[in-house]
Amino acid sequence: MSSKSLVYSMYAWRLLSRGRHMCNPFRNWQATTTSFTQIKRSYTERANYIHVENDEQLKGVSLLKFDNKPVNGLSKDFLIELDMALEKLENNPTCRGVILTSAFPKIFSAGLDIFEMYQKSPDYTNAFWRSLQNMWLRLYGSRLITIAAINGHSPAGGALMAMSCDYRIMASGPYTIGLNETLLGIVAPFWFMDVMTNTIGHRKTEISLQLGKLYSSDEALKIGLVDMLAEENEVLDVAKVHMKQWLKIPDYAREISKQMMRKKTIDKLRSRQEEDIAYFTKFIQKDSIQLSLGKYLESLKKK
Amino acid sequence: MSSKSLVYSMYAWRLLSRGRHMCNPFRNWQATTTSFTQIKRSYTERANYIHVENDEQLKGVSLLKFDNKPVNGLSKDFLIELDMALEKLENNPTCRGVILTSAFPKIFSAGLDIFEMYQKSPDYTNAFWRSLQNMWLRLYGSRLITIAAINGHSPAGGALMAMSCDYRIMASGPYTIGLNETLLGIVAPFWFMDVMTNTIGHRKTEISLQLGKLYSSDEALKIGLVDMLAEENEVLDVAKVHMKQWLKIPDYAREISKQMMRKKTIDKLRSRQEEDIAYFTKFIQKDSIQLSLGKYLESLKKK
Amino acid sequence: MSSKSLVYSMYAWRLLSRGRHMCNPFRNWQATTTSFTQIKRSYTERANYIHVENDEQLKGVSLLKFDNKPVNGLSKDFLIELDMALEKLENNPTCRGVILTSAFPKIFSAGLDIFEMYQKSPDYTNAFWRSLQNMWLRLYGSRLITIAAINGHSPAGGALMAMSCDYRIMASGPYTIGLNETLLGIVAPFWFMDVMTNTIGHRKTEISLQLGKLYSSDEALKIGLVDMLAEENEVLDVAKVHMKQWLKIPDYAREISKQMMRKKTIDKLRSRQEEDIAYFTKFIQKDSIQLSLGKYLESLKKK
Repeated sequence: MSSKSLVYSMYAWRLLSRGRHMCNPFRNWQATTTSFTQIKRSYTERANYIHVENDEQLKGVSLLKFDNKPVNGLSKDFLIELDMALEKLENNPTCRGVILTSAFPKIFSAGLDIFEMYQKSPDYTNAFWRSLQNMWLRLYGSRLITIAAINGHSPAGGALMAMSCDYRIMASGPYTIGLNETLLGIVAPFWFMDVMTNTIGHRKTEISLQLGKLYSSDEALKIGLVDMLAEENEVLDVAKVHMKQWLKIPDYAREISKQMMRKKTIDKLRSRQEEDIAYFTKFIQKDSIQLSLGKYLESLKKK
Repeated sequence: MSSKSLVYSMYAWRLLSRGRHMCNPFRNWQATTTSFTQIKRSYTERANYIHVENDEQLKGVSLLKFDNKPVNGLSKDFLIELDMALEKLENNPTCRGVILTSAFPKIFSAGLDIFEMYQKSPDYTNAFWRSLQNMWLRLYGSRLITIAAINGHSPAGGALMAMSCDYRIMASGPYTIGLNETLLGIVAPFWFMDVMTNTIGHRKTEISLQLGKLYSSDEALKIGLVDMLAEENEVLDVAKVHMKQWLKIPDYAREISKQMMRKKTIDKLRSRQEEDIAYFTKFIQKDSIQLSLGKYLESLKKK
Repeated sequence: MSSKSLVYSMYAWRLLSRGRHMCNPFRNWQATTTSFTQIKRSYTERANYIHVENDEQLKGVSLLKFDNKPVNGLSKDFLIELDMALEKLENNPTCRGVILTSAFPKIFSAGLDIFEMYQKSPDYTNAFWRSLQNMWLRLYGSRLITIAAINGHSPAGGALMAMSCDYRIMASGPYTIGLNETLLGIVAPFWFMDVMTNTIGHRKTEISLQLGKLYSSDEALKIGLVDMLAEENEVLDVAKVHMKQWLKIPDYAREISKQMMRKKTIDKLRSRQEEDIAYFTKFIQKDSIQLSLGKYLESLKKK
């Protein structure tokens, strides 16, 4: 990562880190040597980053409210918790739909937690990436109706989660969404690319990824990256109104239709999952990348 | 099919069945045990459901006017007749283009005839599905210029026929078009999905199939599901005006270009044709589905 | 090619040939039996058809100005020169971007030089087609930022070059762009089709190829065939402004993102390159095609 790209990263992070004084964003920083399975098991007891609520009015609908301050960074623990929360809801036959949103304003999710990539063992890095893959495979392939109530910024991994839902409602206002990895000097994985291509088509994805474009909510609506806008304080309510419409559709036919449309994209990652993990770990463990990340995180501390 | 989906089916059918008092829609209800080949051969003599006319002004252009009242339901016999009519025109070297339309107002085609799926033998069901596949393979891959003059409602299989043409002109007015199978509790086959994806792209197809969306003519124009609108009583005339433009294009280059664009989609069904038939027959012969269809048809009789 | 398609060819050529009195368009007409490698090597010394300039303000940016009057026809020699110019810039580590434009007004490029297809040996025809493939593989897969400053008409191969860049700025005014091969009675190769599908999607490509559509600059903008319009005399300046923005993006991440999006399309031609050459040569060497081309070129001379 060149010094130029570093400048971009800092800029992007600052944009997304408003409010980071509110709590300690380093809480996932400790390296761990426990295996993925152990980590996953240990989480059945402590669910910290996501509130799961049954909607009071809509029977069969749950709300998943991300609460990993300051920016809902996607740490390994967050991703495992999200995967498990979705799995639990899917295994509950009375659950038919889920709304994803942030528990606090201005940020839906800032995407991958950069601290998870710095000075970690290859084992940890592998487990981190696998937790991202697993969360996505579950969300994109979910039998549930999935609606994203995007109540704030949604770059990178945040945009991935939003694009993987069935319907997207975004807060109008000064918020942005997009796969901006390129601006950070890194590259969105092929399956991020595939999901975006499925959502906005080949050409718009190509220019989005090349430029690392973050779209305003108005632009996002125009190019089809989100399906509709709502006032910031009404995003969740509007999501519920739409969920109500989706609940009228026969589940089985809707699920099979969704699976037909998404199977090819899901199968592609499934067949290359280990290869994709190895590629990421090799890339992120490079001395040059670690050096850049170190300088970058150092610069954040000074602020 | 749940009772909920049944309600939807009834609603959809009522929408499409205006005018069904005009004649008996049950005429294809009789089970038959004759083989597909026999059925096909027997149709060379009696062409009942489609009027084939040579256009008086446009040399080399034929009109296919669907006349299977009340809703131009796609029965096995209708589908075989359409396949054969197209085959005959293709084998006629002086024929260069064909316009598909309904012989009567308000309905282009309501799609598959549900009576063809109820209490039929597996052999009949196989033959019915094969007739649908064969019609589509011929229409989508036709060397002819194919223009749909959509002079009324065009759900499900009606939308499939329209999308398989080269150009679509729809009546402005209170008509709808779309793949609404999901609303009926059934699932559009993968090749319906492929044709829609080719027409309006991945994202719009995904949401269309998940919700079983029927689009108004204005919406259909906006998302590219049809190419233009015309006044209801001018749809056919406008189709002829456009056909005249298409006739100016050198046939050979146009045909090869069309083939290049559609080959992959056609080959996909061709390579899975038997599998697709077996899948449909197994699905539709399920006790639960037959029970639902029975209740549904019973409810129609009572009205 | 029928007499009808011949009429179209003539019409199209006339449109594109304004100004052809300015110099002799036949200069590439001589048959040659030298091998492709020999031809390529011999071109390192004489670069005649393209001006390569370093931009005075933008460090790391080169301008490639096509100067093959009257219409920047893509002759074998032109294509080899373009391929080599791009290769040289790619091998220069200080070069980061390139702007493609015409050295003269009103024509970006009229596409393949038809004289290269008439009364040539199979060896020559093979080498001609290979030079087109090689130019495209290099341009579409280039690590450089590629911006097309489309300062005039851009049909057929001209549109291919424009679509293969990363960003397209077209002169507003009476200019057209599109793959109009069908109108000439010939067929755009599958990789032209693939590039257009990547750019404007399946449906718009299908109708464009079937009708051989040439779009006005306004239409081209509307369907996404170009990214923006500029006043005719400002196209190059606007291209530079945009290049400046693209230069802010970290190169490595941008390059990998671009490669990810284009790899499949590039690999498809690579794996079928010889087959594609054989197909073209066999097609173009047909007596009927040569006869038509002869008549066509004869008609041009008479004017």
